[in-house]
Parts: sequence; structure tokens; C-alpha cells
Amino acid sequence: MTTPAERAQLLTPAAVQAAYGLIQPYVHRTPLLTCKTLDSIASTPQSSESLVGTPFEGQTPARPKFRLFFKCENLQRIGAFKARGNHAQALALAASTLHIPAHIVMPSISTSSKIAGTRSYGAEVIFSGSTSVEREAVVAEVQAKTGAILIPPYDDFNIICGQGTTALELEAQYTEQVRSGTLDAVITPVGGGGLNSGVATFFSDKSTRVFGAEPAFEGADDCRRGLQAGERVPKVSTLTIADGLRTPVGLLNWEVISNKRKVEGVFAVTEEQIKATMRLVLERMKVVVEPSAVVGLAVCLFDEDFRKRVEQEGGETGWDVAVVFSGGNTTVEAIAKLFG
Amino acid sequence: MTTPAERAQLLTPAAVQAAYGLIQPYVHRTPLLTCKTLDSIASTPQSSESLVGTPFEGQTPARPKFRLFFKCENLQRIGAFKARGNHAQALALAASTLHIPAHIVMPSISTSSKIAGTRSYGAEVIFSGSTSVEREAVVAEVQAKTGAILIPPYDDFNIICGQGTTALELEAQYTEQVRSGTLDAVITPVGGGGLNSGVATFFSDKSTRVFGAEPAFEGADDCRRGLQAGERVPKVSTLTIADGLRTPVGLLNWEVISNKRKVEGVFAVTEEQIKATMRLVLERMKVVVEPSAVVGLAVCLFDEDFRKRVEQEGGETGWDVAVVFSGGNTTVEAIAKLFG
Repeated sequence: MTTPAERAQLLTPAAVQAAYGLIQPYVHRTPLLTCKTLDSIASTPQSSESLVGTPFEGQTPARPKFRLFFKCENLQRIGAFKARGNHAQALALAASTLHIPAHIVMPSISTSSKIAGTRSYGAEVIFSGSTSVEREAVVAEVQAKTGAILIPPYDDFNIICGQGTTALELEAQYTEQVRSGTLDAVITPVGGGGLNSGVATFFSDKSTRVFGAEPAFEGADDCRRGLQAGERVPKVSTLTIADGLRTPVGLLNWEVISNKRKVEGVFAVTEEQIKATMRLVLERMKVVVEPSAVVGLAVCLFDEDFRKRVEQEGGETGWDVAVVFSGGNTTVEAIAKLFG
Repeated sequence: MTTPAERAQLLTPAAVQAAYGLIQPYVHRTPLLTCKTLDSIASTPQSSESLVGTPFEGQTPARPKFRLFFKCENLQRIGAFKARGNHAQALALAASTLHIPAHIVMPSISTSSKIAGTRSYGAEVIFSGSTSVEREAVVAEVQAKTGAILIPPYDDFNIICGQGTTALELEAQYTEQVRSGTLDAVITPVGGGGLNSGVATFFSDKSTRVFGAEPAFEGADDCRRGLQAGERVPKVSTLTIADGLRTPVGLLNWEVISNKRKVEGVFAVTEEQIKATMRLVLERMKVVVEPSAVVGLAVCLFDEDFRKRVEQEGGETGWDVAVVFSGGNTTVEAIAKLFG
């Protein structure tokens, strides 16, 4: 057995490239979209009033300039980046493609569309409580009963490489669309950390900075807190509306994300900021995203520390920032519940 | 003064091409999207049970094959095809580009996002009742007071040509994407009829068939009823959820749409069918559309007369059908109201 730190050494851009060779026939090359309205909103300073009651109260609002590029993994197969490595629907799809039986353990409070989607590929769905501890107990039970092999949801070398192919594609698409220019930064949601550590792996030998974003609600920002404390937070219990981001960061993922040369920072946003951002994406970009998908954009719009950094380092030119929309698995009822 | 029938003679594909030359710098070339999930749903026969209580009860469900191409005018500037000719937000945008004052008469029950969008371009919004008669009375008042020139919403040669550029673009995009193949049909919503008659004008010298779609609620299917009766229905009073389609077809538009060689048929769908279709587009395609935008797709999914025609004429190969999504100007609150 190697340690997470030893395995993390093998996470290289070449490993992501190799994963791409394997999964390319099975995934969509999702579009990299732009939206002038959102560029303009992100590039407008927040009002001083809107900062009242936030950690940035009393500060002079930053004047960053953003050109945003949205990597639309909500338009990926099964509606999320997880088709690049795992999970639930993605695993069910992979098992059905290879004619292998699959037992999927999901929290009983999962979005109904995710449950139905998983079942529609013929997988057996077994329910568990919503914390990772409860989930892992049910997983152990299923394994004991069926002899099934465990495919972990994010804390896995291959899954990190698969999800890192998001970065490989978006960099190529950025270069196709913006002939001369550098992608200054990429920001992705952080739940278990597979997507973020995969993206950071791909960019680890390039100048593009990688950032992470989390919901703050009920301590869901375990990664940000862990970085501050210098130690991974192993347990999280939160019911943030960003339901894809309720898990703690995995061990191998932590090795990558806590490496300052790979991930420069992780930021947290409130439930209201997630909702406001989701509204903008639906109403102005006309693209359906789930709450988890927009935390990166919410950081660009609302986090004054991040915005100040863009102002200071980007100056008059500003930054070209790729924002990964991780998924779009929601229902009209869920939208109604959030905004009704 | 020429008659509508005389003016209709001048509506030619060349006139649409000329309009494109004028408006191209000011509009987006919106994407032509495909969606395998929706192809598969549209190509699955409806169940006999689902036809109970409809005009098709007791019939053997049709077995059509569809390959659908979605022309996403919901991603157009101001969120709708109207940027290609008119109206409200489009006119406000055009007036602001040319530094001309604009007075826009809108029904007081218009979607709040449409009102706010129109005002955001600096236009003055004046409210009227929701019928075309009430609207025209307020327009006359505003003209008397300000001396403003009336830009009609759809019953106008230039507006028809501008909106017909949707067809020009989608045909070019279809040819780019599908190297060998013929676009068998196009279906668009019919409100005032500008979009449909423009599209029909462009395809009038080509083999692609053009169809129209309307809501049936409270007689909103004035065009379909007019075609059946052999005479245009001049007045409509409906509060269909497809709020962009509450107006009667214009005189010049009627000349085109009632010409069987230009438009082969107009179909009507129920409010429930519009909602079910909107849900599919939001949840499965992950694209935000307003109710008016999906009536064409609803015809493909639910109208057995249309589906039988595709089965009979398309046979084993089926039909390649372009569906125009006319707009996406809705709010999360409006979605919540529809589905909450």
C-alpha cells in the first residue's frame, strides 16, 4: 500500500492525457460558452451597501475585469462532469455499457432526477443516510453481501485523472476561441475534490492558476477550513442547497489541493449568493445549472478577496477566467422550491 | 397603398437574404443544437392510454422517427428572435444603438423580465390592456401625443424578412453539421406570424416543408382555426401561458401562412403539453426556454396528425426536423409559478 502523498506524485498532466485517450469515445466535448452580460456584471464593482453584513463590510469594493469562459459540464452525458470518471448515473451508464451489474449507494435525500436517472441505466439503487459515514457503512454492507468491487466517488487516482480531462478540453477550446491570450485562472466547485484536483493536475505544469469554490453553509467549506488550519477536515454534516458538495475532500484529493503550487486558494459562498448566481445563469445565460455548479461563478461575483486579486494582478486588462459548471441535474420542482 | 396580397408577392428568399445583409452585424448566429434524449422521446410511440381524452383517443399511436435540430433563438440578443426585426426589447436596443427616443406600448401583464429588459435600454414603457385592440388604442394615443412613427410588431414587410433570417441561418448550419441529408421540415411558433411567414418565405423555393404551432387555450389557435374556416380570425382574447402567442396573425403574415405552397399546416397544443415539453427541455436539454418557444416541439411530441405524417412520409428513415425555440425570456419565479 502506498500513501496518498506517494500516489499524488503520480498525478501528472500525462496521466490526465492518458485518461482522455480512454474516455474520449464515451464523453461529450462540452461547449465552452461566453456571455457578455455576465462579463459585464462580474466586471461591475459591488455596491458598498451590498457588502454590509459580509466579511467585506467597510472595504472599498474591488474593480476587477473579467472575461469569463463557461465549461458546460451540465451539458455532459448524464448531465454532469462525473461522466468523466464516476458517479451514480455515470457508473450506472458505464456498467450498462459493459453489461456489468451495478449497486449504487445514494443518500435517500438525493434529487429525484438523479435517482431516476441512475435507475434508468438498470443499476440497483440502495439508500443511505446523507453523511459520508452513513454512506460508507451501507457500502460495506453491500460489498459483504454481493462481493462487489468498490468504485470510490472521488478519492481515486483514475477518477481524478478522468475528471481532469475537463481541463484538457477547456484549455484546447480556449486556445481555439481566443487566438492570442492566456487563460489566467480556472475555478471549479470542490466537493470530494475529484474535479478540482484533476483540473489542478492538468494545469500543474502551466501558468494558469487553479482555484476552488465551496458552499459555506453548515461547515460545507471543509476544504477551505482545512487549508486554514493546515489539516484536512475529515467529517462534514451539511444540508447546503449545493447538494453535490456536501462531502469532505478525499485523502488523495487533499494531497493535490493543499499543495499551494497546484491550487492557489479555495473560497466559500453563502446560500443566498448561490441562489442569486443560479438565477443569473438561468435568466441571463438561459442555461440550466444545479446549485453546486455555480459556486465558482459566485466567487467571481461576490468574494471581494478574489475580486481584489483579479483587480491587482489583472489590472486594466483583467483576467480570462474559466468557470466549470459541474452539472445541471435539477428539476423544475427543485427550481420552484428554491425560488417559489 | 398596395394590398397585403400584393405586398406578399414581394416576400421572396432574396428579400430575406437582403435583410440578413443589413442585420447580421447586430444579431447572434445562434447555435443549432441536437439532443439524443429528445430524439429518442419524440421517436417513441405515445401510449394508447395517454391519448384517452384527446382528439386521438382510440387511434393506433404513430411510430414516427425524428432527428431534431433546435434553432436556439432563446440564446439570441435580448433573449428572442425578435432581435432580427422587432420588438419591445429589440426595438429599445435598436433605438438606443441609433440614439433615437423610443416609446414602447406593452400589455401591463407582460413578464416582468421583459418590462425590465426593455427599460434597461432606456426606452419609455407605456402599459395597455392585453388584447391587440386595447394595445392599438394606446399606440394611437402615444402617436398623437409624440408624433412617433409606428413600428408594428409583426405585420410588416421588413420585419418578416428580418425574422426570416432565422431560416437562412439554420439551413446553413444544418448543412454544415449534416453533410449529406435534406432538412425535411421546419416548425415555428405562430403568434402574430412574423417568424413563421419569414421562415416560410425563405424556404418557398426549397423542398423543406414549413409548419406552424400555436397554443389551443381560449382560442389562441386563431391561425389554425382561420385556415380551417378559410378566413383570417381578426380577434383573439386568451391568457395562454404561451404569452408571446396571444395575438392574432397579421394581414401580411396571413397572406403567406394561408398559402399552402408556403406553409403546409398549423397545429395546436394544450397548456399541459406546453408545460410537459418545457419541463423536458429544461431538465433534459438543460436549456432555458419560455412557454411560447416550445409549441413546435410539443407538436412533434404530442400531435398524432403530425406524427402520422412523419411516419408515413418519412418511413424507416424518418424526418430531419428543425424546431425554432423562439425565446427564453422567463424568470425563476415564472418557472416556480408554472411548476410549484
